[in-house]
Amino acid sequence: MESTEQVILAHGSGGSMMRELIDQYFLAVYGSPELQTGDDSACLPLPAGADQLAFTTDSFVVTPRFFPGGDIGRLAVCGTVNDLATSGATPHWLSLSFILEEGLPLDELAAICRSIDETAREADVRIVTGDTKVVPRGSGDGIYINTAGIAVFGPGQMRRSGRGCQPGDQILLSGALGDHGLAIASSRAELHFQTVLTSDVAPLNQLVAALLAAAPNTRALRDPTRGGLAATINELAEQSQTTMLIEESTVPVHDAVRGAAEMLGYDIFQVANEGKMVAIVPAAEVTAALAALRGHPLGREAAIIGTVHPAGQPGQPRAVVRTALGARRILDTLVGEQLPRIC
Amino acid sequence: MESTEQVILAHGSGGSMMRELIDQYFLAVYGSPELQTGDDSACLPLPAGADQLAFTTDSFVVTPRFFPGGDIGRLAVCGTVNDLATSGATPHWLSLSFILEEGLPLDELAAICRSIDETAREADVRIVTGDTKVVPRGSGDGIYINTAGIAVFGPGQMRRSGRGCQPGDQILLSGALGDHGLAIASSRAELHFQTVLTSDVAPLNQLVAALLAAAPNTRALRDPTRGGLAATINELAEQSQTTMLIEESTVPVHDAVRGAAEMLGYDIFQVANEGKMVAIVPAAEVTAALAALRGHPLGREAAIIGTVHPAGQPGQPRAVVRTALGARRILDTLVGEQLPRIC
Repeated sequence: MESTEQVILAHGSGGSMMRELIDQYFLAVYGSPELQTGDDSACLPLPAGADQLAFTTDSFVVTPRFFPGGDIGRLAVCGTVNDLATSGATPHWLSLSFILEEGLPLDELAAICRSIDETAREADVRIVTGDTKVVPRGSGDGIYINTAGIAVFGPGQMRRSGRGCQPGDQILLSGALGDHGLAIASSRAELHFQTVLTSDVAPLNQLVAALLAAAPNTRALRDPTRGGLAATINELAEQSQTTMLIEESTVPVHDAVRGAAEMLGYDIFQVANEGKMVAIVPAAEVTAALAALRGHPLGREAAIIGTVHPAGQPGQPRAVVRTALGARRILDTLVGEQLPRIC
Repeated sequence: MESTEQVILAHGSGGSMMRELIDQYFLAVYGSPELQTGDDSACLPLPAGADQLAFTTDSFVVTPRFFPGGDIGRLAVCGTVNDLATSGATPHWLSLSFILEEGLPLDELAAICRSIDETAREADVRIVTGDTKVVPRGSGDGIYINTAGIAVFGPGQMRRSGRGCQPGDQILLSGALGDHGLAIASSRAELHFQTVLTSDVAPLNQLVAALLAAAPNTRALRDPTRGGLAATINELAEQSQTTMLIEESTVPVHDAVRGAAEMLGYDIFQVANEGKMVAIVPAAEVTAALAALRGHPLGREAAIIGTVHPAGQPGQPRAVVRTALGARRILDTLVGEQLPRIC
């Protein structure tokens, strides 16, 4: 059965059609007590002992909006939850803002809203405030979503920052590289593979909580999304003024993903991930950290992939890969654009 | 001199061109210490005594992006600051997320970023976290901006909600209606007026602080943006289960705006404002409230425009206008779309 109902400009008017859209598609699916009040901002009592917040934002423009392993709604929740989780704080609340293009089928919007609700429950976060805009046909591409999020530092929860990485620390990766980027690439019309590649998009806050319980002095966390592991390692090295050495042979990559990356000429280190976490952990806690990651369903393929070293001379590259044959190469960040609208 | 430099897809890649864009256009203009850390989320120490937050989000898709009295950057800061201010809390921090269309002139982006910085300083809020996406030509319209914001309730700061309005309360409006909507309408290519109408876009948090100091039992605040005063009054009446009566002759409207609205067939009560606040105040505090509003540069034209009454029978209209001639009419909300992409 084909749906004929579509988003129209009046859904963004601030009038009664917008009210109906909000009631039927948003509040009925992921309505929280805060959303139900109908005020212009959500009021959020702070947990006892809260002394710091983490705050982040991301807009999501991925195409296609439904892809193997997820959709733009799941991605919008996970992207912001994961950015919050890297701080070491506990994610609590999300905002959710839609830019809809006139003509978007309402059944697609409904499916995306259900996915948002399911993913928010999985991550144990609440959507507490929102906004909807509609742009005329040709001024968007179906749906763009922004989520912002707040996490709370409670007593004993320490802030983690890329600045904290130190020589001697170990570099852990929570699972295989490249699943999201290659799933998106292969799901676009022009590319066909025999194996269905599946995005890894998942909320990592509970994995991070397990890691921090086991390795409380974890220095830094970063999810290697756009720009891939290469961007993440370069950022961490830059922030901490260290040299980071990745052992290529230890980096987990699924065979089908490796094959697809080779076929397309992608460097697997530059491909986006949406359900993986890099953790920099002091050597004394690395065994406990690895066990904690591997003990969680989202971390079963976790591995130690490298080590942190003192910075070399000024201008010397700070992110380096040692290949299986022992050669060293600079871990370059992307200059141009490999795959637009990956997230 | 015409600029030839434009946004390209690589500016959204997560790689080194995005880094340059962030450094040169964003951090150099509105870079806060939190943005400079380079982590995936901002860490925000809470002020002493903070026990609640207000949290809101808005995406901005206004066209044209530069209009008399403002631009999309100023609007993106004010819209979120004003939504936060309606809660009664003090706005502190904003997130800022761009969806840029390939081909946007970089000098326009630079002008918008300067406007964001100036407006944030005017409102005394800090931009602490951000995101940038680039979509291909034809999948956007130059620039869309999302801001989310956090305000903090300190000791003695009481939460305000539309639910708090009570019969006997007075309805105040901080200034003249319709300036933003008619400025946008008249600045679009197809419409020409002799008078230049100017948007009222402004951050109202300091006006609200002055009001709350003078009238500490103010029940509710709401900025009448999309859907205009009609939507705001209907929402407040619905939330508080009251009837709200507006005296049409007391509502301030600039002559040029009234003329433009009549020419275009707009109902001034349904036109968007971006620098006005509706306040519901107990009768005992209304004199002090009005004086406080009029004592602030953004509230000089403030007026008492109506009163709150007990709800009538179920199904009876709850928002009513009494015209200059004494007739009563229902204050309708928009059903369709009057003017797309007003904010």
